[in-house]
Amino acid sequence: MFFVDTMETAGLGNRSYLAGGRHSALVVDPPRDIDRVIAAAARRGVRIALVVETHLHNDYVTGGLELARVTGAAYLVPAAAPVSFDRVPVADGDTAPVDEGLTVRAMATPGHTPHHTSYVLEEDGRPVAAFTGGSLLIGSVGRPDLVEPRLTAVLARAQHASAHRLADELDDAVPVLPTHGFGSFCSSAQADGDTTTIGAERARNDALVKDVDTFVAELLAGLDDVPAYYAHMGPANAAGPDPIDLIPPARADAEQIARRLAAGEWVVDLRSRVAFAEGHVAGSFNFEGEGQLATYLAWLIPWGRPVTLLAHTADDVAHAQRELARVGIGRPVAVATGDPQTWVRTTDELRSFRRSDFAGLAAARERGEQPVILDVRRDSERRAGAVVGSVHIPVHELPKRLHDVPGGKVWVHCAGGMRAAIAASLLDAADREVVAVDDGFAAAEAAGLTIAAPASGAPASKTGTAPAAA
Amino acid sequence: MFFVDTMETAGLGNRSYLAGGRHSALVVDPPRDIDRVIAAAARRGVRIALVVETHLHNDYVTGGLELARVTGAAYLVPAAAPVSFDRVPVADGDTAPVDEGLTVRAMATPGHTPHHTSYVLEEDGRPVAAFTGGSLLIGSVGRPDLVEPRLTAVLARAQHASAHRLADELDDAVPVLPTHGFGSFCSSAQADGDTTTIGAERARNDALVKDVDTFVAELLAGLDDVPAYYAHMGPANAAGPDPIDLIPPARADAEQIARRLAAGEWVVDLRSRVAFAEGHVAGSFNFEGEGQLATYLAWLIPWGRPVTLLAHTADDVAHAQRELARVGIGRPVAVATGDPQTWVRTTDELRSFRRSDFAGLAAARERGEQPVILDVRRDSERRAGAVVGSVHIPVHELPKRLHDVPGGKVWVHCAGGMRAAIAASLLDAADREVVAVDDGFAAAEAAGLTIAAPASGAPASKTGTAPAAA
Repeated sequence: MFFVDTMETAGLGNRSYLAGGRHSALVVDPPRDIDRVIAAAARRGVRIALVVETHLHNDYVTGGLELARVTGAAYLVPAAAPVSFDRVPVADGDTAPVDEGLTVRAMATPGHTPHHTSYVLEEDGRPVAAFTGGSLLIGSVGRPDLVEPRLTAVLARAQHASAHRLADELDDAVPVLPTHGFGSFCSSAQADGDTTTIGAERARNDALVKDVDTFVAELLAGLDDVPAYYAHMGPANAAGPDPIDLIPPARADAEQIARRLAAGEWVVDLRSRVAFAEGHVAGSFNFEGEGQLATYLAWLIPWGRPVTLLAHTADDVAHAQRELARVGIGRPVAVATGDPQTWVRTTDELRSFRRSDFAGLAAARERGEQPVILDVRRDSERRAGAVVGSVHIPVHELPKRLHDVPGGKVWVHCAGGMRAAIAASLLDAADREVVAVDDGFAAAEAAGLTIAAPASGAPASKTGTAPAAA
Repeated sequence: MFFVDTMETAGLGNRSYLAGGRHSALVVDPPRDIDRVIAAAARRGVRIALVVETHLHNDYVTGGLELARVTGAAYLVPAAAPVSFDRVPVADGDTAPVDEGLTVRAMATPGHTPHHTSYVLEEDGRPVAAFTGGSLLIGSVGRPDLVEPRLTAVLARAQHASAHRLADELDDAVPVLPTHGFGSFCSSAQADGDTTTIGAERARNDALVKDVDTFVAELLAGLDDVPAYYAHMGPANAAGPDPIDLIPPARADAEQIARRLAAGEWVVDLRSRVAFAEGHVAGSFNFEGEGQLATYLAWLIPWGRPVTLLAHTADDVAHAQRELARVGIGRPVAVATGDPQTWVRTTDELRSFRRSDFAGLAAARERGEQPVILDVRRDSERRAGAVVGSVHIPVHELPKRLHDVPGGKVWVHCAGGMRAAIAASLLDAADREVVAVDDGFAAAEAAGLTIAAPASGAPASKTGTAPAAA
């Protein structure tokens, strides 16, 4: 008798697992908000006996240490991970009892990191689940370039070998339960389906169907941008993260919000891009609370800068605070909720800007307007096609490159509208006239705009305009 | 619809509460091991919306701050409590929503501390439960002498007034749900029964049936010793306690145990007093893991001294570690479990001493032996009667007063055997010949020993022998 419960952290595209038997369980790669994990164990009626890390994470702050401290679980961390806190060092082949008849076995699977370790749950000696962390994912593997450029090629080869080791040592029926690959930038590609097994991966995973040289070449060629905040996660996890702090922040009035903005702090409006465009505090930025708030805010903000949150409700704030805590952004210094009109002093007005779509952009051009068209997607997305004449600055580069945006009215677009809203708010805060294109990129061509695809393998210049022809 | 769940912390004689409705709940005076609280909320399927403290606790380290940090609950602390962390300050009459139709109302009830606050749970405006912390207890009240001697008389009078305020403002049917009084030294007497109501207390609680002068005089006359470790709890709670650390300690071998003992550290054997007397590491002390381990170890140990635990099983260690964490004794520096023979170097022997009972003591005297009879009970217990000729040193004073124990063989007794076992281990570690009287004190008279009751109100001299006659 064993169970495996999946705990989703959708905002980061990661999964954690609670797995065990009648009395006790292990937790794999817990998120920083450990109350969810303790609650999951309580619902199962089990004690958390073991907390295991597959690797030193680069995309989020682990809750492993705090979970172990709070519950008394043994904290198993790959022995070679350079951490500065007490833990049970784990080496290849080590086993630990989970519950009656249930054992977990460590299997060294380097690739995502040099020390990466998978954990195989065994029932009466028979493997019943493989927690593969950032090694073998659903139709993909964990990216090998997050540790150190010098090691990337070596780790890519190791990733191929680790996938083969898992496939060689485990039966086709064994479920593969990875941590990354559900939107996480730690994955080299996103999950193809929701569940998988060793057998399913054996049939279609590049690491298992392609020879090592082809696999490595394609893996390295396909790597996307890495969120800048990743640089802070490894050190935080190695030092032993501070305990999470989800205590509701202090309330700010309009005067305080104005003072914080004047001091250069970030005031982040969590409302929908529709509501933000209609009326917002001058100088505030729009990172919608739903979706990838944590990834994008952590990516763009100067690290350590105090954050004030604006939102409809206290629940929206609590949700965002939890998302941000997971990536190491501490308790907001202040919050305001309710009517946006109360966020500005009576002498101030709410600002607004226009929202439109690609058809609107095409119509403006028809009328003879020559606005700046700003594409804030990533290089990898732009390679597949861009509006002719558009300027390209990925949204994560925009805060430091506002001066690279040509003068005049700016129409800003991304692939779906969320990042365009972020970018529009950044430009609006810099007093630029902006129109946010709230539209899917597929609509650009349908609207009659000319799309140019840069030659394969040659990314468009980051500041240049798209070539006139592919 | 509301519920109240009681969370017992038996080792400290305290209760915490989880109370709420369908979706969310408040927690009153949470223990430091917050995983129990999160699990209780998960079993109820509710979110913890509020964590409230009735007062700055003097008998344990609160889990309130960490529980709020981990769950995102608002942390309500009486406004006048001098804390150095962010919290929601609570004043008399303040209310906070708990769930639909459920509100909690703060009621200033000074006495146990100057800022002590009770919390009344109201359903649709009607009081349905009173969380009285250390004010009105079951048949008793919280003691007023834990804050500052200068304030004790004033607080005793305030306690009387607070009890009356609760009785005046609440209906007879309202359940009274105190934090203290279940063995806690914070109570001026121990609970008479397991549950109570305003009506039941109105009929029998001294604070409600006696005039203030009589009540105060009797309260102050009846106060028992205060565990020394209490001095460290207030400051820890005011500063904001460190997060709990229940991570399993490192294992010590015989060599390390010997080294730690030689360095003056405390090595504490958690096994039963029977097992300890039969064979133990020379120099180790016996604090049984079951019962009031935390109170007595925290009371006796020089504060901050590293602790090594010896026990039958890792579970025994985990249980003890949790108990000790609640009173601010951090993770043990080392542990050893299993066969005691493995706790000593092969060149060393386990030590042992004799256990007996009052009949054995009487028989020894019959044979003409003149052993030292050491009574390690508290003053308050000794006042009710003592073996004639016995020496009195309360167990909590013994570590610093070993030189006050007269020479020769020592028979040590308490009221039931547990404290005698502690004392015997202290004496044995100091190389004294000792017999532990593992017996209830009532058996002393039955065994033919002469019992003398000191005159009422005149405590026996702490070092003197019991008077020959009352």
